Amino acid sequence: MDRGAPPVKPATRPLILLTNDDGIYAQGILAAWQELRKLGQVQVVAPDAERSAVGHAITTLQPLRTKEVVRRNVRFGYAVNGMPADCVKIAVRAILPRPPDLVVSGINLGSNTGTNVIYSGTVSAATEARILGIPSIAVSLATFTNPNFSYAARFSRKLAEEVLKRGLPDKTLLNVNVPNLPEEEIKGIAITRQGASRVEERFEKRVDPRNQTYYWLDGQFRVQEVEEDADTTKVQDGFVSITPVQFDLTAYGALDQLREWKLEL
Amino acid sequence: MDRGAPPVKPATRPLILLTNDDGIYAQGILAAWQELRKLGQVQVVAPDAERSAVGHAITTLQPLRTKEVVRRNVRFGYAVNGMPADCVKIAVRAILPRPPDLVVSGINLGSNTGTNVIYSGTVSAATEARILGIPSIAVSLATFTNPNFSYAARFSRKLAEEVLKRGLPDKTLLNVNVPNLPEEEIKGIAITRQGASRVEERFEKRVDPRNQTYYWLDGQFRVQEVEEDADTTKVQDGFVSITPVQFDLTAYGALDQLREWKLEL
Repeated sequence: MDRGAPPVKPATRPLILLTNDDGIYAQGILAAWQELRKLGQVQVVAPDAERSAVGHAITTLQPLRTKEVVRRNVRFGYAVNGMPADCVKIAVRAILPRPPDLVVSGINLGSNTGTNVIYSGTVSAATEARILGIPSIAVSLATFTNPNFSYAARFSRKLAEEVLKRGLPDKTLLNVNVPNLPEEEIKGIAITRQGASRVEERFEKRVDPRNQTYYWLDGQFRVQEVEEDADTTKVQDGFVSITPVQFDLTAYGALDQLREWKLEL
Repeated sequence: MDRGAPPVKPATRPLILLTNDDGIYAQGILAAWQELRKLGQVQVVAPDAERSAVGHAITTLQPLRTKEVVRRNVRFGYAVNGMPADCVKIAVRAILPRPPDLVVSGINLGSNTGTNVIYSGTVSAATEARILGIPSIAVSLATFTNPNFSYAARFSRKLAEEVLKRGLPDKTLLNVNVPNLPEEEIKGIAITRQGASRVEERFEKRVDPRNQTYYWLDGQFRVQEVEEDADTTKVQDGFVSITPVQFDLTAYGALDQLREWKLEL
C-alpha cells in the first residue's frame, strides 16, 4: 500500500507498521519512515493529531475514521481520529493485508522513561501490538527542544533489523529512549529497567473571562533513581536505553501476604 | 467538604477519596459512597461523564474544570471534565485539604480482568493514587446487565477497612472484581493474578449518509486462562477476585537475554 517504497522483492520484504502519538504529521514519524523504508515495506497508520499522555486508551464510544495522507509527494499512510492503540488495532484488523512483521511506534518528541511510561501513548501502541502477538518497539527522543532525529532514526532501523531477525521474548516489547546527541557523543547502548522518576505535578489555578475557575496541569520531571541501571539516569548519562516491557501487572510478590487477610463479610 | 456524611469525630475518621470511570452520576459510585460513609469521610471527585477504556490517560492539552454535584439532596462531590487519573491528581493537589488515607475507584459496571485491565480507567485511578503514595483499591462488578451493587458495595467497605488498618505492600494496589450475585451465592474470596483473557476485537465497517466509511470497534470477551488462579476464571466461578497490581512494567526476565544483543551502529 506504500507506493513510496521501492518495490524491490516485495514478497520477501518485511511488513512494518509505523505509528506514534505525536500525530501523523510529526517530524519524528517521518524520520523513522525514511530509515525503516530501507528495511522493508512500511505502512504508516497514526493519529490525525497529537495524542500525548493518553496512556493505553482506546476508542469505544465513538466511531473511527481513516484518511489517506500524502507526505513528501507519496502516499505516506493513514490518519485515524483515535488513539495510538486504536491505530494498531485498526491497522491490523482492517487496513493491512496481513499482520505486520513488526510494529514501530515513534519517534516520540520527549522521553518516555520512569514511572511516566504508564502515561505514554507511544509505548501503548507498541504494547497493543504485543498483545496482538506482533513484535514491537517504542522509540522516543529525550528532548522537547531542537530535536535531531537522525541518530535515533538510524538506531531504530538497526534495532528493527535485529528484532526481525531474532524475535522478542514472549509478551515483551522494547521501550527505547535516545539522547538528543550527535552519534559521536552517544556513550553506548544500555539495557535498562523502568526507573522510579516521575513528574512532580501541580495544578495552576486560573480564572477565565467569564469568572469561572479552571486548572492547568503543570509539573517538573524529577529524577528519583537510586539504581544505576534505570532508564532515566542512563539516558541522562548519554546512553541509549532499552527497557524490556511486559503487560502483566500482577504484583506477584504480594500474593502470599494478601492470602493471610481475613476478608469474608 | 462532604456535608452529607455524619460529622462524628471528624478529626479521627479516615478521609476516603472516591472516584470512578463511569462518571459521577453512575449507580456504582453511589452504592460505594453509601457504604464507605459508614467508615469515614468520603470525598467524591469523578469524571463528569463516562470515560471507559481510557487506560492511564491524563489531560495535558486542555484545562480541567471542577463542578460541585448534588445527589440524594447532599453535596455528593466534584465532577471533573477529565480522566479518572486526572480526578485523583486534582483531588489530591487542589481539592482535598490533606492527602486522603485511601482512594477507592468504582464500583465499575463491567469486569476489569485479564489483559483488558490495561484499558481500565477504573484501575488507572487507583494506580494514580498509588503512584502518589496513597493506598488504593479498584472495584468492578462483573456484569453489564441487571447490576446489583449491594454485595460489592459492602465488600468494598470491608476491604477498605482492612486496607486502612493494615496498609498495602509498597507500590501495590488491589484490583477487585465481584460477581453479580447475591451474597449467599458468592463462593468466597480469591487472591488472584491478572489472567490472559482478552477481547477478541473486530471492526465493523459502515458507510455514513455522506458516503464516508467509518468503523466501530466491537468484540467478544474470550476466556483464555490456563492457570486456575487467574482473575477471570475465579470471577466466573463465583468468587470475588483480588489481584495485587503494580506499575513497574519492566520485563526483568528478558534483561539478560537482551544484553547479549550487539546493537552498536
